[in-house]
Amino acid sequence: MLKVGIIGVGTVGTSVVNILKDNAEIITARAGKEIFVKSGVVQNLDKDRGVDIKLSKDPMDIINDPEIDIVVELMGGIEGPFDVVKAALAKGKAVVTANKALLAYHRYELQELAGDLPFEYEAAVAGGIPIINALRDGLTANHIESIQGIMNGTCNYMMTKMMNEGVDYQPILDEAQALGYAEADPSFDVGGFDAAHKLLILASIAYGIDAKPEDILIEGIDNITQEDIAFAKEFGYVIKLLTIAKKSGNEVELRTHAALVPQDKMIAKVDGVMNAVSVIGDKVGETLFYGPGAGGDATASAVVANIIDIARRGKGSPMLGFHTPLEKGLTLKSKDEIVSKYYLRMGVEDKPGVLSSVTKMFADHDISIETVLQRPIDNGSANLLFATHEAVEKNIQSIMKELSQASFVNTVPSMIRIEA
Amino acid sequence: MLKVGIIGVGTVGTSVVNILKDNAEIITARAGKEIFVKSGVVQNLDKDRGVDIKLSKDPMDIINDPEIDIVVELMGGIEGPFDVVKAALAKGKAVVTANKALLAYHRYELQELAGDLPFEYEAAVAGGIPIINALRDGLTANHIESIQGIMNGTCNYMMTKMMNEGVDYQPILDEAQALGYAEADPSFDVGGFDAAHKLLILASIAYGIDAKPEDILIEGIDNITQEDIAFAKEFGYVIKLLTIAKKSGNEVELRTHAALVPQDKMIAKVDGVMNAVSVIGDKVGETLFYGPGAGGDATASAVVANIIDIARRGKGSPMLGFHTPLEKGLTLKSKDEIVSKYYLRMGVEDKPGVLSSVTKMFADHDISIETVLQRPIDNGSANLLFATHEAVEKNIQSIMKELSQASFVNTVPSMIRIEA
Repeated sequence: MLKVGIIGVGTVGTSVVNILKDNAEIITARAGKEIFVKSGVVQNLDKDRGVDIKLSKDPMDIINDPEIDIVVELMGGIEGPFDVVKAALAKGKAVVTANKALLAYHRYELQELAGDLPFEYEAAVAGGIPIINALRDGLTANHIESIQGIMNGTCNYMMTKMMNEGVDYQPILDEAQALGYAEADPSFDVGGFDAAHKLLILASIAYGIDAKPEDILIEGIDNITQEDIAFAKEFGYVIKLLTIAKKSGNEVELRTHAALVPQDKMIAKVDGVMNAVSVIGDKVGETLFYGPGAGGDATASAVVANIIDIARRGKGSPMLGFHTPLEKGLTLKSKDEIVSKYYLRMGVEDKPGVLSSVTKMFADHDISIETVLQRPIDNGSANLLFATHEAVEKNIQSIMKELSQASFVNTVPSMIRIEA
Repeated sequence: MLKVGIIGVGTVGTSVVNILKDNAEIITARAGKEIFVKSGVVQNLDKDRGVDIKLSKDPMDIINDPEIDIVVELMGGIEGPFDVVKAALAKGKAVVTANKALLAYHRYELQELAGDLPFEYEAAVAGGIPIINALRDGLTANHIESIQGIMNGTCNYMMTKMMNEGVDYQPILDEAQALGYAEADPSFDVGGFDAAHKLLILASIAYGIDAKPEDILIEGIDNITQEDIAFAKEFGYVIKLLTIAKKSGNEVELRTHAALVPQDKMIAKVDGVMNAVSVIGDKVGETLFYGPGAGGDATASAVVANIIDIARRGKGSPMLGFHTPLEKGLTLKSKDEIVSKYYLRMGVEDKPGVLSSVTKMFADHDISIETVLQRPIDNGSANLLFATHEAVEKNIQSIMKELSQASFVNTVPSMIRIEA
């Protein structure tokens, strides 16, 4: 029998306890031994969680319990969980966590500390989708050329509603909050940070690259308007919050932002709260993994799979998927040097010479225009929409700054990258 | 260093050799040791395969080589490979195979014979998609409620062309053969047998159920016409060759056949030669795995992942995913008792009383009609198209027989199941 302690018995923790009980027969058959949740840690002992395990308030009660084989960390936060997980490893416990923020900051230290102890984290990326399993164990024959993910259900729910129902950003955010899909402070989701944490974990497995959230390009969906959506529809795109890892030469670019995606691509068809991750390998070609990215039971499904895996074989794969450095000489590409196609939108005065001034500005910044659309607005203004050929990020940032200061530009110009 | 011998160095075997060479740096980092293909077996030594490994004609040269750690079986066939694999296990070798037919017939004997030896077969189902990995290791917390797969690229290519371009069955089969997507004798693919073999493997992992191809419902796509496709389009369906496993109560139904699938389902969006498998678990909900189901490099990507897995940890998961019987009392549902919605098409004489006679026949067989469409044909005939509510397979089979004998029915009636 394998004994588990859960630090943080909230929605996911409760689901873990319930799944191990509800599905005990098949789990024992698959694991080769019985798995038993011995105890849990919560902040508030007075709240009824509907689970019949021993609860206490101190994580050390689990960590110091010699009977516990696996510590499941579901606390939330970064440094608190880091201390708890370090203490568990120091006591020789296997660790399972669903904590993406912890891993976004401390995964390399944890790989080092774990050594030969099992350390698993399937639930940290894309909830119930076994994407760590796929990338770390299923696609190991490949150099990973790129990863494109829809890894934040809140954003995808909002973008789907904005695309399909013509609802504006603020009302749909209000609705998402009412439905419990978005937090009271939604910035972690809609600002792209949650998705970026997940991207950093996948990038370590794919490339062995070490980066922290502050090193990479992170933007959200809060500047998307119905004008952008109308443009997207007219030109055969959908707008998604995408996480992107892409290798070119000896550089890897990592970024999270809203993007125009051709509507016939498989990932463009992922709607609502669902997540998906497309992985292109040099040998396998494109694979895509789709499923629920959040929810108590879906996330707990991944946590329990990790527990079963540890029961089956102890230390399985190396934590981040490699024993020795993966791709020597690979570095993180500077944000400024990212190459993409771009869509730009701005409100301008509707008078002679404006289009000429704007297009000259593009030429001066070495940005080649693929498509221009001018649409009149009521008050003597017009909306100018541009799609560019491939351009360099720093040139786009620089023209955006110049446009926002130009006398004939009435609105803050807005930009969305186009992923071909 | 881990030493590999490959029995059957054809398209996939050559790709295995090349991937292990091309991607040696990352593979060594991931596996924790070097992997080296020492020798191969081919039927014709005179044919140049462009690989610099030692080749011979006798599988026993590899099996008897004490230096070989892993035998990779890529021969094709059933009983020949079974003998070879048994001999390899008897010599204590780990085995990797891509042979779905071998597993469709002998997977339980092989699980028994393998014992503690690694036996892996990721490439046997859906080529480059790590679906064995997902189902056997990633979704282990779940009772599997259903599996729906598009697991034959030839059929999906053909059905996509028939749907999107209005091409008839025979010309598109000719084209698929010219492109190398279909064999000279296409019946193994278009008859549904290839997909059925894959289904049986997944059903063992999901349910522990033992069945052979002759025990389950297997039909192909050769009776699909443009009339069916027109009906599908009008009512919001696509037609796919689907593999289906579905659990209800203590029974599991397993079947492969053409099916009408609502076009907004994720699996309906899988086009061309691509494969996908949708898995619904009781805890995780729906997950879907998409990618290339065939091709030398894509299939070899899966073979090499298995080799790396064995290098990392020797015996990993139990071969079929369970140590003791998985779901006690679970039995294979009789083909006759399958419940589905059905679409039926027949040509009838266009005269008074015919519709009444046909609908009475439906009532007599306890089949409730959801939709009727009558369309005139030139010569005094009409096409009658029916969609039913849920009905029992044996009643459908019986009405199909009666309809084909009815005096007012001009053409062989045709049936497609509807998957909601």
